[in-house]
Amino acid sequence: MTVYIDELQPGMSATIGKTITDADIVLFAGISTDTNAVHLDEEFGKSTAFGGRIAHGMLSAGFISAALGAHLPGPGTIYLGQTLKFKAPVRPGDTVKTTVTVKEVVVEKKRAIMETICRVGDVVVIEGEATVMIGKRPA
Amino acid sequence: MTVYIDELQPGMSATIGKTITDADIVLFAGISTDTNAVHLDEEFGKSTAFGGRIAHGMLSAGFISAALGAHLPGPGTIYLGQTLKFKAPVRPGDTVKTTVTVKEVVVEKKRAIMETICRVGDVVVIEGEATVMIGKRPA
Amino acid sequence: MTVYIDELQPGMSATIGKTITDADIVLFAGISTDTNAVHLDEEFGKSTAFGGRIAHGMLSAGFISAALGAHLPGPGTIYLGQTLKFKAPVRPGDTVKTTVTVKEVVVEKKRAIMETICRVGDVVVIEGEATVMIGKRPA
Amino acid sequence: MTVYIDELQPGMSATIGKTITDADIVLFAGISTDTNAVHLDEEFGKSTAFGGRIAHGMLSAGFISAALGAHLPGPGTIYLGQTLKFKAPVRPGDTVKTTVTVKEVVVEKKRAIMETICRVGDVVVIEGEATVMIGKRPA
Repeated sequence: MTVYIDELQPGMSATIGKTITDADIVLFAGISTDTNAVHLDEEFGKSTAFGGRIAHGMLSAGFISAALGAHLPGPGTIYLGQTLKFKAPVRPGDTVKTTVTVKEVVVEKKRAIMETICRVGDVVVIEGEATVMIGKRPA
Repeated sequence: MTVYIDELQPGMSATIGKTITDADIVLFAGISTDTNAVHLDEEFGKSTAFGGRIAHGMLSAGFISAALGAHLPGPGTIYLGQTLKFKAPVRPGDTVKTTVTVKEVVVEKKRAIMETICRVGDVVVIEGEATVMIGKRPA
Repeated sequence: MTVYIDELQPGMSATIGKTITDADIVLFAGISTDTNAVHLDEEFGKSTAFGGRIAHGMLSAGFISAALGAHLPGPGTIYLGQTLKFKAPVRPGDTVKTTVTVKEVVVEKKRAIMETICRVGDVVVIEGEATVMIGKRPA
Repeated sequence: MTVYIDELQPGMSATIGKTITDADIVLFAGISTDTNAVHLDEEFGKSTAFGGRIAHGMLSAGFISAALGAHLPGPGTIYLGQTLKFKAPVRPGDTVKTTVTVKEVVVEKKRAIMETICRVGDVVVIEGEATVMIGKRPA
């Protein structure tokens, strides 16, 4: 279901959603080694401006990788780069909707720039751009 | 053990290491929903230019989050942004060393720019910059 | 299949086994927040006297809890105390055999002292004693 | 950030906190094989004196390992032994604060005795002592 470089058009987009559970946060802590108390200690979280535990920003950034690699352009995509602005916190129980939208396509370089946005409800929690490489549709 | 904004000096750095196991890849697939075959299907991986399965780039990016939040500046750090260039693949069994280095400090804005590099042996696998916010040392 | 306080006899024992996988180590790191490099970074592990990564000692101690609570005395056991001596390292891939043996029974206090030993092959990796409470068999 | 044997002073302490989620309990059950119903079966838990499910005692004991290995003395610490008294139950949703405090230092043996206490609010849930080994600061 890959959309190849010669088929990508600016404006095409794909959206995926996932609810952040405590399991996601504990597992991400283990694989990343990011055990910052703001993610794992509710009492500490309450003492901060966030008012409670928040998920790791890079956990939600993983959804961008998923949207690019599994949906648009899809399988075969090579991930070259990403910019991320963490705009608002994501809390346990929040559902993150991640949308990737084609912004620019350079067919001869096999590269595309994708706008990448994660939202919780109407709030943008991460915004940025991805650079991906994908070939032409095999003949 | 946080290094506060008025204590951060350009050139200060911290390095952490983690070996990428199959467990990391499976768990990251589950929490991110990034089930791209190049990460999970050894036969598919062998058919690609990578010659085998590779870890998710965002999995290694998580180590940057850990280095910033747990080591430098350390607990209390607010993660504002990150740029990432994925330069080379990381494979199961590779040990990723992640180094964060203070590049610029703007005390009055409580912000610092950190150079962030992930290496496997001598090979840079991710390079980029983080923007973080951290307050002054509490009196 | 609980063995109640008036049925426990010194010398009774139960043994369980589990192989330590990378998944166990990564998950234990996440739930305990123990991300010490000796458990997670193979290159660091090689630089130590252990010659490679080792599992968390408390991970194997969890098997004692399992042997007591699920096998002897079994369901209904209340865990009052434990002593642990960490005698030798446990490595990824090792199979840990955990044996709990009744040492003393004080029926009127509903308490028993259990010898608790974890082995890898013939090597004792943890030794210690547990104190447990269990009632009489319900009439 | 390790505190070496010749730098450890009685009274030095470090505290870490973590909130116990259902994910922690399920994952600990899986890695330890401690599938005692009191941890996993809410209906069974309600039939006991605890009035509901409780976390595995050894799960909280893992925080002691984390506090010693990551904070005080910190990376490089070798864990030689631990005593544990389980004084009160820990329930899903509780935040466990774990404090390790230097009690005795024997520089020539490179050994220290640490008091180790886990609390939920003001209630001591685990108390005991750790024996650790740590070298002198590398020249």
